[in-house]
Amino acid sequence: MTSLLPAGWATDPAVLDARRLDRSGFDPGGRPRAVVFAESADEVAEVLRIANADGTPVVTRGAGTGLSGGAVATDGSIVLDLSRMSRIVEISATDELAVVEPGVITSDLDRAAGRYGLRYAPDPASVAISTIGGNIATNAGGLRCAKYGVTRDSVLGLDVVLADGRRVGTGRRTVKGVAGYDLTALFVGSEGTLGVIVGATVRLRPAPVRTATLAAFFPDFVAATTAAAAVTAARLQPAIAELLDRVCLDAIDDADGTALRARGAAFLLVQTDGPGADVEMDAVRAVVEPLSGDVEVTTDPVRAEALLATRRAALPALERHGRVLIEDVAVPRSRMADAVAAIEKIGVRSGIRIATMAHAGDGNLHPILVLDHGRAFDEDVWTAAGEVFTAALDLGGTLTGEHGVGLLKRRWLVDELGPDVVDLQRELKAVFDPNAILNPGKKV
Amino acid sequence: MTSLLPAGWATDPAVLDARRLDRSGFDPGGRPRAVVFAESADEVAEVLRIANADGTPVVTRGAGTGLSGGAVATDGSIVLDLSRMSRIVEISATDELAVVEPGVITSDLDRAAGRYGLRYAPDPASVAISTIGGNIATNAGGLRCAKYGVTRDSVLGLDVVLADGRRVGTGRRTVKGVAGYDLTALFVGSEGTLGVIVGATVRLRPAPVRTATLAAFFPDFVAATTAAAAVTAARLQPAIAELLDRVCLDAIDDADGTALRARGAAFLLVQTDGPGADVEMDAVRAVVEPLSGDVEVTTDPVRAEALLATRRAALPALERHGRVLIEDVAVPRSRMADAVAAIEKIGVRSGIRIATMAHAGDGNLHPILVLDHGRAFDEDVWTAAGEVFTAALDLGGTLTGEHGVGLLKRRWLVDELGPDVVDLQRELKAVFDPNAILNPGKKV
Repeated sequence: MTSLLPAGWATDPAVLDARRLDRSGFDPGGRPRAVVFAESADEVAEVLRIANADGTPVVTRGAGTGLSGGAVATDGSIVLDLSRMSRIVEISATDELAVVEPGVITSDLDRAAGRYGLRYAPDPASVAISTIGGNIATNAGGLRCAKYGVTRDSVLGLDVVLADGRRVGTGRRTVKGVAGYDLTALFVGSEGTLGVIVGATVRLRPAPVRTATLAAFFPDFVAATTAAAAVTAARLQPAIAELLDRVCLDAIDDADGTALRARGAAFLLVQTDGPGADVEMDAVRAVVEPLSGDVEVTTDPVRAEALLATRRAALPALERHGRVLIEDVAVPRSRMADAVAAIEKIGVRSGIRIATMAHAGDGNLHPILVLDHGRAFDEDVWTAAGEVFTAALDLGGTLTGEHGVGLLKRRWLVDELGPDVVDLQRELKAVFDPNAILNPGKKV
Repeated sequence: MTSLLPAGWATDPAVLDARRLDRSGFDPGGRPRAVVFAESADEVAEVLRIANADGTPVVTRGAGTGLSGGAVATDGSIVLDLSRMSRIVEISATDELAVVEPGVITSDLDRAAGRYGLRYAPDPASVAISTIGGNIATNAGGLRCAKYGVTRDSVLGLDVVLADGRRVGTGRRTVKGVAGYDLTALFVGSEGTLGVIVGATVRLRPAPVRTATLAAFFPDFVAATTAAAAVTAARLQPAIAELLDRVCLDAIDDADGTALRARGAAFLLVQTDGPGADVEMDAVRAVVEPLSGDVEVTTDPVRAEALLATRRAALPALERHGRVLIEDVAVPRSRMADAVAAIEKIGVRSGIRIATMAHAGDGNLHPILVLDHGRAFDEDVWTAAGEVFTAALDLGGTLTGEHGVGLLKRRWLVDELGPDVVDLQRELKAVFDPNAILNPGKKV
């Protein structure tokens, strides 16, 4: 069957091996039969026609930076690698949009937009290594979501190859439009299970003329969430509001020789942006300062980057201590302190070190389960992760805020959605992919 | 069959007549067999179970203010009137959200949110008379969309009764979440064809602390669109940017005895909001002033309302001159002047007076076809409307920005979506409504 594939396929074991997994660390042991490095939508269509006729699973892949097993290869599958479709086709400064191929690295798009005083707002932590196609497939979030929304909010239209090789356009180049059901939103976050995204028209937004950044330390996490809640209660709208817990700060101190823990047991970083950044920051400072003995505010971009670096240092620091399972629950903002308390209890019960960082502006928590070096994701680990999911659901939240369901969270999906909605999802999947060739076993 | 319906139904001709049409002015002559005034989700489920078993069409209705025939009753249908389900169930200031029943009048929600320093951002022109359920069913827009998005961007989750009477929840109370396909976005804008929305969790946003408003007159429409484009090119993000053409200004002068046309042939209103409103308005003024000899800027809310009143006066003034067909195309912002030129030509060719107002911030134009009193929507009117749609599509736009497809635009839908996408839409519809009882003949 591989002989039918378009140019640019490989069955070399080393090539297959390099495209078999993602960054979740999860390995179910499946081996793909080939990798196709598609260079055009026509090649994608050709692969899908062949696979669909044959019933061969197709696992679409960008940079493989996903954290939920969404791009992990099924046994016997064709891995459809889109990383070579990496052209920025158009940037329209007048219409504040870009047309891109799926393999464009997200920060490359942001940088290209910057030349026009624009930016691509969604900024997952992986922005420098992940592709826009992968971001769309998972509806990726990031730091700026509270103000600028998630990936879905920046996607105007998609160019999609369906399972049977037909190519369709969804959405439009206009900001508004209600002709037909919202297929664009259906494809965003569908994790390669409904079609293969071969192009996207995305919204660009004005790059902020100014930013102001606050960093504060607190005696405990509850005080830090209280401060974040006070910012919301003052009806302010920061672009970024990030929290780190004690375990994160300890890990950074260990790794980098800093003394953050001496300053507090929780860290809050808030950034305002836009023409009102300074005025808004004055108001942020006024509500945060009474709750923290250690507040710094800057409008200097270089100093702001240094403060943001503390947030960015957390994950690499934790990874030095062992293998990490990066979780991704979200709860209503009012329940963040409850969620962290529940996570701490799960850490104590399970004996697993759990660090928590959070996008405080939208209640999205990343509990990081840090396992001893060499320890697998054994059943005890999944039990602890399951308890985290259940805690989030009990607080009115979700088991995935921005990373996706992939392989890793499928068994908990029905707990969140209920059986009727899961049934509907499967019927929708069948409309787009009747032979179930597209990323089977993922998402639904 | 009506004897099986829950309490609160009527077959009285006067009651039926009052709920047979919407505000599009379009009357295909169908007569419903009953109206049910549902007061709870359970009653809605009961109606749908009966109708589904029986194959009776169900036309769901809020306030009937739609402009595309979406709520126009099918012959022999049950009209499901949800206007009595009008409770604001919850406002959470901490989580910046509200839980509402579908019959809540949109401005009532906005007012209730105001008590907490919040607001419900989407503001269709019908905000004081339309329901939130209707707004969700059409994915309504409004003046503030360019900055705050359309209705979809403010809906976090839905409570929906399916065609067979099952009740499901979609989405969540959290800002982010990617568990399952985005059913919420699928129901938003589905015009009553996929399920009946019996509740919604909507996002509230901080009410702006300040606004600044600019009103300017221009010698012609091209100059006004050039000014609007200059605001965008300066990478500014007004909350409101509205344009009125010469025909609108003439009508207002006629109706209200003003002398707007003496000041120019096109009117632009721009409002900035938030903590940076003044700074941003200084920048707006700097780019608009060189293009207009008549610019006023105010930060006084009372004066701002007076300036906005000019925009609001346009439609009532046009309605004095005859029956109106309110159209709703959107084009990429860079093509607005081209769209207006095309619309003017269609007016000349058809001999129909066409006024154009536009949400300049998102390229959404409302060409208003003003017919002589007593003239029906005859085939010449539809020909002219069809030419407007074709012009919008030729410019890379859409035939409906925010009013929906309803009955009136169905025949042009395939021109925009193409046959493959229309097929997919119909298959999706069949998943949710296999017996095709929900608002048949609308949307798809």
